[in-house]
Amino acid sequence: MEATAITVAIDCMGGDHGPEVTVPAALRFLQENAEASVILVGFLDAIEAELQSRKAGATPRLVIQPASEVVEMHDPPAAALKNKKDSSMRIAVNLVKEGRAQACVSAGNTGALMAISRFVLKMVSGIERPAIITTLPTLKGRTYMLDMGANVDCSAEHLLQFAIMGSVLVSSVEKLDRPSVGLLNVGEEEIKGNEVVKRASELLKGSGLNFIGNVEGDDIFKGTADIVVCDGFVGNVALKTSEGLAHMLATFLRQEYGRSLLTRLAGLISLPVINAFKNRVDSRRYNGASLLGLKGIVIKSHGSADVYSFKFALDRALEEARSGMLNELGKRMAGAF
Amino acid sequence: MEATAITVAIDCMGGDHGPEVTVPAALRFLQENAEASVILVGFLDAIEAELQSRKAGATPRLVIQPASEVVEMHDPPAAALKNKKDSSMRIAVNLVKEGRAQACVSAGNTGALMAISRFVLKMVSGIERPAIITTLPTLKGRTYMLDMGANVDCSAEHLLQFAIMGSVLVSSVEKLDRPSVGLLNVGEEEIKGNEVVKRASELLKGSGLNFIGNVEGDDIFKGTADIVVCDGFVGNVALKTSEGLAHMLATFLRQEYGRSLLTRLAGLISLPVINAFKNRVDSRRYNGASLLGLKGIVIKSHGSADVYSFKFALDRALEEARSGMLNELGKRMAGAF
Repeated sequence: MEATAITVAIDCMGGDHGPEVTVPAALRFLQENAEASVILVGFLDAIEAELQSRKAGATPRLVIQPASEVVEMHDPPAAALKNKKDSSMRIAVNLVKEGRAQACVSAGNTGALMAISRFVLKMVSGIERPAIITTLPTLKGRTYMLDMGANVDCSAEHLLQFAIMGSVLVSSVEKLDRPSVGLLNVGEEEIKGNEVVKRASELLKGSGLNFIGNVEGDDIFKGTADIVVCDGFVGNVALKTSEGLAHMLATFLRQEYGRSLLTRLAGLISLPVINAFKNRVDSRRYNGASLLGLKGIVIKSHGSADVYSFKFALDRALEEARSGMLNELGKRMAGAF
Repeated sequence: MEATAITVAIDCMGGDHGPEVTVPAALRFLQENAEASVILVGFLDAIEAELQSRKAGATPRLVIQPASEVVEMHDPPAAALKNKKDSSMRIAVNLVKEGRAQACVSAGNTGALMAISRFVLKMVSGIERPAIITTLPTLKGRTYMLDMGANVDCSAEHLLQFAIMGSVLVSSVEKLDRPSVGLLNVGEEEIKGNEVVKRASELLKGSGLNFIGNVEGDDIFKGTADIVVCDGFVGNVALKTSEGLAHMLATFLRQEYGRSLLTRLAGLISLPVINAFKNRVDSRRYNGASLLGLKGIVIKSHGSADVYSFKFALDRALEEARSGMLNELGKRMAGAF
């Protein structure tokens, strides 16, 4: 595919760190992607100060769009939607709606981003709810998983829609012809699972998707399926549990290497190995979850993202915008109903 | 508490390995616990051959109880219950019912063990469904989590019952006065979660338990709560996902240490550290999940358990039988209803 000019709107105020992370990440992103542009949305002073401190400024590829408000992490989504119409988040989403940007990225309040995106961009016809899709490292490469927390009560039909959206995204972005879809369950046998999952399995079998059946929790990191489908409650618990386990294991390993002079020496000698390992499973490289089902590309970054991590969320926005995924999803849903 | 004589009935035929694992594990268990006895249930020839090869035989503390059948891993639970009345699993559970053993342990078919135990032992009054509770390592020590897969569709009332059972078990076994109970959810705020979990939260607040509110997936391994309550679907996914992640991380670490002569040397120097680390998170040391809610102690071992691992399941049976947990649960439920 030819590289077309893509503009990414960035909510520079969102997340734990705001412009001091989002602005340098944007500069790095521009450096790495010659055909991409950005619109930095937020407080003019703060953004300009960050740019100046890095000896950068507005260019044809770097436009500043002022915003006077910020959606805070504790703002209820409905209130953010109703009252903060000049927030950096809202304006970033508006830019996508207006066609001035092909994607937007925010590290802000997930619920507010969801509510604003849904209100401004609207849903793709045939999709009832947006879902959050994320990528995870696996033994084989990477896998996509959804929903990661947008929908805690799901019907079988919702799970089917997640599978369709995930398939379109993965086939567009990864250039995979018929990506495999696994339904997260408590056993591989068809009789297993709760009522919703059993019904979803029936729907998936008749969907025309490359449905490989039930997968279990341990299949996620094995990379058994290209796409793992589950409700947002289960997806969120699985993801957070994984984060907790990784943290505990890292802590234990550090403790064991820190026990004595001898173990510290062993740690020093192992440093290149441990760094290579850490880089390989660095969750920052998987930052950037997509809010799927909207008529526009909206990427949610972790709130605590650093510059390195936020840049990956920008990469993801570019990747999805380039892939033509939205068109494909529209076509698929038009054919499906 | 005074050490009282406890007898553990062992389904020697269950699991992937049968007597070659269960029998030596039983011998090691007897060696370590002078006041404990075992009844080995299964094919007479197979058990005697294993004992002989280890220069052991029947003693007052080691009794063999013949059984002519084996519940296979693929047997449907209802069929195992109906047709395999002389199976090693069934007889081991019968021994608990008859009072000849204070607990039984099986590495066999979970569904069949559940069905047989429920039929033979019956439920504690006031408990509608058995739940599977397991221990997990945490940053602080260990935590208990239930349900791990027995109940995939749960009501709020079931979750409350799980919390009560978990509290009684943990206070009895760990000698904790008021163990803390966390409800697994997708956010700490009360407004979060699906409908069942929101209602369960209300019930838990009025339960008199030491309910600390919602916990998230990453709280499990942090050790935020002594007991983490969830439905069996979520619990199973969380556990299996953790197993998958641990396996992937171990594989990646091994690959990184195997890259070159230099990294292999670093690995050799780090061996004591890595072994200490592995031992600390060795899932075999957490083997032995309890089927809670029955009028008898039934412990499920991993099917793939080795001798080292199966011995921990036997230890768990002894620990629970000694703790007086069943009496406490009966009292608690009699008072609660």
